[in-house]
Amino acid sequence: MAPGPGFSDEKNETLCESESTVYVHNPHLDGMKDDILYHFNLGTSTHNLPAMFGDVKFVCVGGSPWRMKSFIEYIAGELSLEDPKAEYPNICAGTDRYAMYKIGPVLSVSHGMGIPSIAIMLHELIKLLYHARCTDVTIFRIGTSGGLGLEPGTVVVTKQSVDATFLPRLEQVILGNTVVRSTDLDQGLAEELLQCSKDLGQFETVIGNTMCTMDFYEGQARLDGAFCSYTEKDKQDYLTKAYESGVRNIEMESSVFAAMCKLSALKAAVVCVTLLDRQKGDQLISSHEVLHSYQQRPQILVGHLIKKMLQTSASVAVLDKKTVSV
Amino acid sequence: MAPGPGFSDEKNETLCESESTVYVHNPHLDGMKDDILYHFNLGTSTHNLPAMFGDVKFVCVGGSPWRMKSFIEYIAGELSLEDPKAEYPNICAGTDRYAMYKIGPVLSVSHGMGIPSIAIMLHELIKLLYHARCTDVTIFRIGTSGGLGLEPGTVVVTKQSVDATFLPRLEQVILGNTVVRSTDLDQGLAEELLQCSKDLGQFETVIGNTMCTMDFYEGQARLDGAFCSYTEKDKQDYLTKAYESGVRNIEMESSVFAAMCKLSALKAAVVCVTLLDRQKGDQLISSHEVLHSYQQRPQILVGHLIKKMLQTSASVAVLDKKTVSV
Repeated sequence: MAPGPGFSDEKNETLCESESTVYVHNPHLDGMKDDILYHFNLGTSTHNLPAMFGDVKFVCVGGSPWRMKSFIEYIAGELSLEDPKAEYPNICAGTDRYAMYKIGPVLSVSHGMGIPSIAIMLHELIKLLYHARCTDVTIFRIGTSGGLGLEPGTVVVTKQSVDATFLPRLEQVILGNTVVRSTDLDQGLAEELLQCSKDLGQFETVIGNTMCTMDFYEGQARLDGAFCSYTEKDKQDYLTKAYESGVRNIEMESSVFAAMCKLSALKAAVVCVTLLDRQKGDQLISSHEVLHSYQQRPQILVGHLIKKMLQTSASVAVLDKKTVSV
Repeated sequence: MAPGPGFSDEKNETLCESESTVYVHNPHLDGMKDDILYHFNLGTSTHNLPAMFGDVKFVCVGGSPWRMKSFIEYIAGELSLEDPKAEYPNICAGTDRYAMYKIGPVLSVSHGMGIPSIAIMLHELIKLLYHARCTDVTIFRIGTSGGLGLEPGTVVVTKQSVDATFLPRLEQVILGNTVVRSTDLDQGLAEELLQCSKDLGQFETVIGNTMCTMDFYEGQARLDGAFCSYTEKDKQDYLTKAYESGVRNIEMESSVFAAMCKLSALKAAVVCVTLLDRQKGDQLISSHEVLHSYQQRPQILVGHLIKKMLQTSASVAVLDKKTVSV
């Protein structure tokens, strides 16, 4: 199998504008009169994308539309950008496929469940950032997951996203042929998130591998799906092997998120809270309140880092100004 | 690769109750005190599932929550079960993962986009129907798709769901091993739907193979994604091969829908309208109104068949009553 569909890490002069641009790798796009981002209900001829999104520096994505609305409310407060009278309108209100919210430099987008669902969203998000001429964008997936050998509520920042055989790769079928893409994530960003957790001191955070599966039940060795042809021992053996390979949590989107962000030169991190320890059970029996409080942890962690990064860039801007005026 | 994870077509005496029951294939389920259907926000200890769902005979599933609400309103009218004052409440109101509506014997459930998203829903739906002791259930997926060699607006009833190499199979990874499942659908039900279209005379309907892909852009040979490493000719060659193998439309959920319904002995059909001819383009440039009217066609077709089947069963009941009273 080829290492990828012809995209090297080297700069493609015809497609990339600068080091910090969001890259698309599609020579056909520039020849299109309009580009309809169908699942967002947005388009280049119907919306002024540079005016709407040109200032975006941070994108947070997560499965649930409700959670992504709650994140924009939270980050507005953290960045002191909130207006008590303001509603945060869903920018994709004309469709129910995804929900999108924006405040200042932060965009929050839902992606549904599973690799295909997040992949559609990312294709259109990457094109949106490209059309809007965004630069220096950092992207976070904030999600939920099953944990391995961790107390429920622990946050896992992904080192590598691995498949169900514990390999750090994504297999995609293009024109009927399987191509393999790298699922590397930004290690520096992961370390910064770990440091944020230490600064905050509110909950446990670890860096570990994340297993990305195509199914929640049989695909994650659960015993409580409609179908199950294996024993409790088979399940435990599989999860033990996963743990031994470095896997600390299991979810359903990280591999294609990592692969597509890498191809687009988006600095990316995956930050998921563990809702249960899969070696101790399959069902989510914790109370609604407990699960809800766990789900806020990736928001708090990412919110803290965004605030820190914005403060740093503001200090740099002040410093630059001083240097110029000297 | 094995032909499946140990589920034969033969009756499993320990798990199946009768010919018409909805089957689960999981010996662990009966040992569980409660079963939390997490993504529906329903459970066996919190809800009386037989009372809520025991009368369900038809389930319609589709990607969009809005469309599934509109279907329940439509079918309520068709079956003269509507109450002009009634709102149809979302049974899964406590979660934003899926939406679910019910009127009389008809259940309408959204499933999001892609195989993983519909698979989670189907695991929990099959368990719901099993816990509710439903019998003789027929299930339809009503969706949208890209067409091949068909006028936009044509409805395709799926003969076989095939993968991106045109083979009628679903590969699933269970405990790290790939298993292959059959994607056969009920041919009699497909023929009945075709007959309904003839009865209605409102739009074109064909029976053909449906290609089920993991991605909307590169996975369906589109030229308008964020990434594209092939030419227009490569795309056309691939779509021509698909057409020659019998594929008439392309979507993202039919294979796992077919496989899981077959395992559960649910009589199943996939009914998707084509929104465009993929050999002529990639973008959805038709007006909102035109696309909306196309999306109603699978609803109209399935609604007509449900009405017909209920009328037939009512006639049989009257006939039975007469026979008894003779």
